[in-house]
Amino acid sequence: MTTEWTMDTARLSLNQITLNTLGLPEVVEICERHGIGSLAVWRDKVAAVGLDRAAALVRSAGLHVSSVCRGGMFTDPTVDVREENRRAVEEAAALGADCLVLVCGPLLDHDLAAARGRVHDGIADLLPHARAAGVRLAVEPLHPMMISRRSVVNTLAQALDLSDALDGEVGVVVDAYHVWWDPELDAQVARAGRRVLGYHVSDWLPGTADLLLDRGMMGDGLIDLPRVSRLVADAGYTGPVEVEILSTRWWAEDPDDVTRTLRKRFEEFV
Amino acid sequence: MTTEWTMDTARLSLNQITLNTLGLPEVVEICERHGIGSLAVWRDKVAAVGLDRAAALVRSAGLHVSSVCRGGMFTDPTVDVREENRRAVEEAAALGADCLVLVCGPLLDHDLAAARGRVHDGIADLLPHARAAGVRLAVEPLHPMMISRRSVVNTLAQALDLSDALDGEVGVVVDAYHVWWDPELDAQVARAGRRVLGYHVSDWLPGTADLLLDRGMMGDGLIDLPRVSRLVADAGYTGPVEVEILSTRWWAEDPDDVTRTLRKRFEEFV
Repeated sequence: MTTEWTMDTARLSLNQITLNTLGLPEVVEICERHGIGSLAVWRDKVAAVGLDRAAALVRSAGLHVSSVCRGGMFTDPTVDVREENRRAVEEAAALGADCLVLVCGPLLDHDLAAARGRVHDGIADLLPHARAAGVRLAVEPLHPMMISRRSVVNTLAQALDLSDALDGEVGVVVDAYHVWWDPELDAQVARAGRRVLGYHVSDWLPGTADLLLDRGMMGDGLIDLPRVSRLVADAGYTGPVEVEILSTRWWAEDPDDVTRTLRKRFEEFV
Repeated sequence: MTTEWTMDTARLSLNQITLNTLGLPEVVEICERHGIGSLAVWRDKVAAVGLDRAAALVRSAGLHVSSVCRGGMFTDPTVDVREENRRAVEEAAALGADCLVLVCGPLLDHDLAAARGRVHDGIADLLPHARAAGVRLAVEPLHPMMISRRSVVNTLAQALDLSDALDGEVGVVVDAYHVWWDPELDAQVARAGRRVLGYHVSDWLPGTADLLLDRGMMGDGLIDLPRVSRLVADAGYTGPVEVEILSTRWWAEDPDDVTRTLRKRFEEFV
């Protein structure tokens, strides 16, 4: 592993899915207790307490909201996602989030080109609304293994092509877990430049056994995170770094222990 | 799905991993019983009967050997894979195989660039031996989710860059399961052209639950196989089409039933 740690721990943002058993109030308390200044919130957790209370909670705790997860899911032609995505934009605005993360939707039939076309059209439709609300949209390319579960956008190059087709207004999230394997990683992070609106970390376990819920704690896997951090820094990204670990193994642990561990691992491995 | 079937069933080759519970003699009998003229053999199954008997078995059955699986595994610096790969070349020559498939080896530490460098060097070292034996080497890019289990070569573009760096002498295998998601698929299959030395089919199940052993039967999943077949045909590939299904579900079925099913599905979906 490289030895140049590039990310200051002050930039650590807790993505609340990492503590998925907790509601938003408890996660806000965790941040306060552990001196974490930034939080990424999920919409189902916001809905559970209501948007007004969610906004008040993060505001009174002085928390920065690095992102709202998620808008998107453009690929199902039988569902009207337009209203849902507009609500997502409004929530991101109310929470003062740096960006709304777009998880673009899975493949549901045999026509991959059409599904990808729907993603383009869905974002194009959402953009004016996001612009008016002052919310940045960030496409998160997901690992190719998630194509039938979450997203047909599977590489940074593809996400940036999408962005190019939309005049560069849409940004991207670089999630190390999703893109670390890509032979194009260096070139595409550099190409993204100021379009990098978020950087997420976790780790790829050597014997990973589940396509969705077996992400590793930083340092437990094979990703050279300091190297990816350096790429993202070189692209000009100076914002929060989200720890986002979807893991049934970590969800079973005590949330304070998990938070202590991720903070330590962030210092050591990101 | 597209409606242009491009692959004649006469081109069907049975990759013996699809009937993994059987030894080579039984698989040869299956081919004879079901009128399949081409077979892909695995080295462990060859070893189980001995190379001479294996060669005699396929010869007396009049079977064409589409490939030998596998050489490669170049990434472990602590293991001398050189002799093993030379033996693989000799077996491919003795069996008259169209090519030796290279599964290039998993990532074992944090240095992905070094692992990929070892793959290049390992192939460069093996090439003169393969050339002398009259055996074509074919790099099979594997799905990115297999990076820590099987291979650090994860896209067609990467495999072709490797080939370019070796003067184009090394070919590639296009396995639909591994590459179907790739936004670069069309361009890279066209770029491969006559370097396509094999074409493998199976299907991606919508709810696929295992990274290695949950491949679907053609028609049960989301891959637009006729479309991939057309790309491969347009690239100029006219050889055997291997049905390669690594699946604990199908391995539990009666091999004759599986063979009947795959033959029918090949006619319908490839």
